[in-house]
Amino acid sequence: MARYSGIPLDPDVVLAAAARLSSLAHVTPILASSTLDAEAGARLHFKAEHLQRGGAFKFRGACNAVFALSDADAPRGVVTHSSGNHGAALALAARLRGIPCHVVVPDGAVAAKVEAIARQGAVLHRCAPTMAAREAGCATVQAQTGAIVVHPYTHPDVIAGQGTAALELLTARPELDALVVPLGGGGLGAGSALAIAALRSRCRLYLAEPSGAADGARAFAAGRLEPDMVPDTVCDGLRGTLGAINFEILRQHQAQVLTVDDADTLHALRWVWTRMKQLVEPSSATVLAAVLAHRELFAGQRVGLILSGGNVDLASVARLG
Amino acid sequence: MARYSGIPLDPDVVLAAAARLSSLAHVTPILASSTLDAEAGARLHFKAEHLQRGGAFKFRGACNAVFALSDADAPRGVVTHSSGNHGAALALAARLRGIPCHVVVPDGAVAAKVEAIARQGAVLHRCAPTMAAREAGCATVQAQTGAIVVHPYTHPDVIAGQGTAALELLTARPELDALVVPLGGGGLGAGSALAIAALRSRCRLYLAEPSGAADGARAFAAGRLEPDMVPDTVCDGLRGTLGAINFEILRQHQAQVLTVDDADTLHALRWVWTRMKQLVEPSSATVLAAVLAHRELFAGQRVGLILSGGNVDLASVARLG
Repeated sequence: MARYSGIPLDPDVVLAAAARLSSLAHVTPILASSTLDAEAGARLHFKAEHLQRGGAFKFRGACNAVFALSDADAPRGVVTHSSGNHGAALALAARLRGIPCHVVVPDGAVAAKVEAIARQGAVLHRCAPTMAAREAGCATVQAQTGAIVVHPYTHPDVIAGQGTAALELLTARPELDALVVPLGGGGLGAGSALAIAALRSRCRLYLAEPSGAADGARAFAAGRLEPDMVPDTVCDGLRGTLGAINFEILRQHQAQVLTVDDADTLHALRWVWTRMKQLVEPSSATVLAAVLAHRELFAGQRVGLILSGGNVDLASVARLG
Repeated sequence: MARYSGIPLDPDVVLAAAARLSSLAHVTPILASSTLDAEAGARLHFKAEHLQRGGAFKFRGACNAVFALSDADAPRGVVTHSSGNHGAALALAARLRGIPCHVVVPDGAVAAKVEAIARQGAVLHRCAPTMAAREAGCATVQAQTGAIVVHPYTHPDVIAGQGTAALELLTARPELDALVVPLGGGGLGAGSALAIAALRSRCRLYLAEPSGAADGARAFAAGRLEPDMVPDTVCDGLRGTLGAINFEILRQHQAQVLTVDDADTLHALRWVWTRMKQLVEPSSATVLAAVLAHRELFAGQRVGLILSGGNVDLASVARLG
């Protein structure tokens, strides 16, 4: 695996994360739909992470980070900033370990997700909806409480944990030709790249990114991070900017970004809701939208897709549908 | 099984139906939720019939009836009246066998369900939303075309087919103490009673019926059918009146009716949507509503529940949620 020389994380960290999570996270089912297969002209294998604990893959990374803490460090608790799923996941993981959790939440976050964070017993800290305000809020809480910062997508233990979803999928479906995952900050993508490497799989990796938050596509085109972005997308889980470590891992893996318009994502979302009967959130539908918009890349192939989460406000369902 | 003397259908018809459906219907998954288990104080095993072909358990009965037709009879086609899932199921089954299908649809049926009927290639015939108009429309088509009437819930092959859902559930979970299924016309209930008998199971059978369409509860109380009903319930799949053959089978089985208010059903529906992430239709949620409204009947027990279907208008999700 020469292409992994100099990689910032050893792919085997994903195997270690899987061992750590074995009694904590669900092994989520893999779903299929003959209707969607016919529509895509490919065999689609959906990894149902909306059925993960906390309703999103984020529990994998958060839980791996929390349970990797030493017994000496853990009592200090953890802190993060999150508009939703990572915050709820970290709060759930912290509750399971019995340690404090603080979440800095930007104004405008989806109500169902904020409620989920509170329900898990985390302390909420509100901030302005900018990355600078989120980082500053996090730093303040860290300084005041001594809590350990668990960044939503650049923390190495988070990346390793997120990779366990692809690890399970590729272990159950080793014949996959391609894997498509949503791209926001890049934690799931980088973790998936590590999982592919750990398994010595030849599966190609694609990153589905909303065109209204396409800093990832621009970074790949320019060969450097392009973090200057004002996200404008219905995919509330994918508004983060690509992390440096994630970009490095994904570039070395030769992952490809496929940008998708919100209209295509919403079309795909309706398919998942009405045909698969799975109440996923908009971010989850980017992967199907990418496959349907690039049928030539996947024609006749066996394609894995990660449905990343299912935490959607019911009030938005009629509006989006 | 003395209590089955004089039963109008031999329980083994369910086993024959299972054999006939083995290459045609899905063996649907059985879902669980620790959150809902905690809420109910019982271990709940949800049979996911919303993931059946056509999006509802109705495909089992319709397909069994269509494929039980002789090669001589089949070319005449089939006809039924249906406000939704049975019509779409019969249309799909007829398409699979390559024979004509006519569906008499009452005005006011759920748009998503009518579209599904048309999508399967059936000929639609509109009628007034009364049982008399539905029966008359069916008779007219039958006289004009020679098609064979497949009643939505009193046809013996339909009842036998519906029983295969409970058969699969009890085969996979033989330890169940109780099974709860929705009650409309009684096809699913009667089929489930036959499945329990065929397996010599001691599982108790409960029928969850909307209080706004409680002709079943009244029939059990009075000891005779009480078909004079104007249904008023959000559960569009459960507005039919209990069939005579179904009533007889259910009485002999000593099934119990649990009526549930729409408010409780909608509360349960939100749980299934937001916690299980399963986009089921309101009728499906009656079973969870019944368990939550009668915790004393199920405390600490292993309870099977049939999620009957998932064909819901997205526009109604926000309204119902």
